[in-house]
Amino acid sequence: MIKACQNECTAGGCSGETGKHMADSFKASDLIITPATTLKEKPDPNGLVFGTVFTDNMLIIEWSLASGWEKPYIKPLQNLSLHPASSSLHYSVELFEGLKAYRGVDGRIRLFRPTLNMERMARSARRATLPHFDQNELLECIRKLVEVEKEWVPYSTAASLYIRPTLIGTEPSLGVKKPTKALLYVILSPVGPYFASGSFNPISLWADPKYVRAWKGGTGDCKLGANYGSSIYAQQEALEFGCQQVLWLYGEDHQITEVGTMNLFLYWINEDGENELATPPLDGIILPGVTRQSILDLAHNWGEFKVSERYITMGDLTAALEEDRVKEMFGAGTACVVCPVSKILYKGKHLHIPTMENGPQLTTRFLNKLSDIQYGREDSDWAVLVS
Amino acid sequence: MIKACQNECTAGGCSGETGKHMADSFKASDLIITPATTLKEKPDPNGLVFGTVFTDNMLIIEWSLASGWEKPYIKPLQNLSLHPASSSLHYSVELFEGLKAYRGVDGRIRLFRPTLNMERMARSARRATLPHFDQNELLECIRKLVEVEKEWVPYSTAASLYIRPTLIGTEPSLGVKKPTKALLYVILSPVGPYFASGSFNPISLWADPKYVRAWKGGTGDCKLGANYGSSIYAQQEALEFGCQQVLWLYGEDHQITEVGTMNLFLYWINEDGENELATPPLDGIILPGVTRQSILDLAHNWGEFKVSERYITMGDLTAALEEDRVKEMFGAGTACVVCPVSKILYKGKHLHIPTMENGPQLTTRFLNKLSDIQYGREDSDWAVLVS
Repeated sequence: MIKACQNECTAGGCSGETGKHMADSFKASDLIITPATTLKEKPDPNGLVFGTVFTDNMLIIEWSLASGWEKPYIKPLQNLSLHPASSSLHYSVELFEGLKAYRGVDGRIRLFRPTLNMERMARSARRATLPHFDQNELLECIRKLVEVEKEWVPYSTAASLYIRPTLIGTEPSLGVKKPTKALLYVILSPVGPYFASGSFNPISLWADPKYVRAWKGGTGDCKLGANYGSSIYAQQEALEFGCQQVLWLYGEDHQITEVGTMNLFLYWINEDGENELATPPLDGIILPGVTRQSILDLAHNWGEFKVSERYITMGDLTAALEEDRVKEMFGAGTACVVCPVSKILYKGKHLHIPTMENGPQLTTRFLNKLSDIQYGREDSDWAVLVS
Repeated sequence: MIKACQNECTAGGCSGETGKHMADSFKASDLIITPATTLKEKPDPNGLVFGTVFTDNMLIIEWSLASGWEKPYIKPLQNLSLHPASSSLHYSVELFEGLKAYRGVDGRIRLFRPTLNMERMARSARRATLPHFDQNELLECIRKLVEVEKEWVPYSTAASLYIRPTLIGTEPSLGVKKPTKALLYVILSPVGPYFASGSFNPISLWADPKYVRAWKGGTGDCKLGANYGSSIYAQQEALEFGCQQVLWLYGEDHQITEVGTMNLFLYWINEDGENELATPPLDGIILPGVTRQSILDLAHNWGEFKVSERYITMGDLTAALEEDRVKEMFGAGTACVVCPVSKILYKGKHLHIPTMENGPQLTTRFLNKLSDIQYGREDSDWAVLVS
């Protein structure tokens, strides 16, 4: 298929100024693999702090407007050498993804719905004015990287190998403009069980409208670095109030949007007396999470209760709490899969969310179902074999 | 004065875990200067593209939670060696500043109100959860860097040396959290006359509420990278509509906020028939620009017309255009000082702004006054001598 490239040239030839053909994407078949010869010791997955230990190798692919994509490399994990004017360091021209490789009970390694990550990454790249690429080729490069690093995929059904694709602008210029140079790389980090005890540790949330995560007309629906750095200050304040995460509100009516860096779900009896699983709609300020989508898909498939992408305000929630209509609330994301919520500090009051008192039945059911697919206890086309 | 440092230790001793004293700021008197021995040729300032040519040396200072600030270095401009998990590359934990050094008609080099940049940088650092530092010490380090690079300050009253302080998180971890490692650096770039002809080239603006630069509860009032990268996509769309810059709108009533990466001023006869210079107030979504503040200060001092920090909607503007009450509109920033606006594309209509027909008298007056101070034609305590 012929596709237009960044420089208006096509895959079959180039009409650009340089006169030479530029690749519209790198290709996995061009991979040059020169892995590390000195290997680090693999850590005990039970003691890992998220995202602090990295494997021996990384995937790295350079792009420039003048030459298009270079060949992809798998080579030893190393520091990046970046011009101090790089647009990623000044103007946050950067995006990332997060997915995991799981070692199944059958010993085989699986990715979970990785095409959804590739599609989101392509959307993020467009919004960040970073170069496009063939999503299947990147996925195949990642598959090969995981294959090279397969011994780093924990031998545990309570741990996994976190995969972090990253795309940054490396334009060495202080002009605020679409970059003419970029770098795509993927690093891997073994991560332990999110819940150390093996059981759920419910979290407490700080809900204050003074900090807003994302807004209409912004970038909250893309996985751009810009959405994350600005959240840390609010997270610090949440800790000062004795809460673990921020519950992000939006608008005059204090809509509930996300929690920390996760999507949010409420399982309740709604205003019409129906059992409902609700999560905010993808209206531009919500990250379209892969776990979010999977939970919606599972719940739709079960067909046992109403499943809604709808607005929920703090007013809706407090009314439901008063009327004893709330069953469970949980965050959903790649890191923890699902994360039960037990408390919200809002307008100086501690709201108790009875998630744990409810089992938490539904939260646990999602965790088990998704884990079964990820660790190969259940067959599913959501699981993609690495090898 | 004893100040608390990042690790809760004090300047006089440390109560932290490491037991060793950590500096609450680097000190200019500790500067280690090892300048480049091979010098690049200085370019003709008339042919420069903004922010693409850099001087021979840079300032660089490392920070860690464990050790505090290291000694500052002035050393040859060089690529940064960054861990691929650095929080600046993933979560946009980064900020910058922009100011200029001017070679005056008396041959002496001046900075323009640099303490305002240092204060803003400290505010940005706080918002980005990056380490604090002594603003005077950083200014003195910058002064020394400019002194080392003084031959790079263009011998021209239509050019200057752009100074780019940058502070980035270098935490080598994928956790979204306050960094325990950071890097402060300053690079210098000679920049030519913003208006190549020496006269004003008025710009056209694209005003569409579909992209929003900043919002209440966000970071629009800090100079964080996050505010800039997300603007490039809208800027690309402005170009597609034949406009040069984005006029950023906000809210249901389409408030005028900023233009491109500049603050915005409207000189008009307001609703009450008064001559008024108006710019949006610092309500959290407006960057507190140094040029903005200087224009307000000058205008207040002149006392010749009303000076207001007030909301202006597109409705206010179109009504004023219909009633022939608009005199001049201009952007204001360090790069161009002032930048006249001649057209706005809004809701499919081209609005003509008669800035140039008015001289532009006031825009030119601000440009001349600020240039006189910057290039030493007029004495002012806004100009700080470098040497």
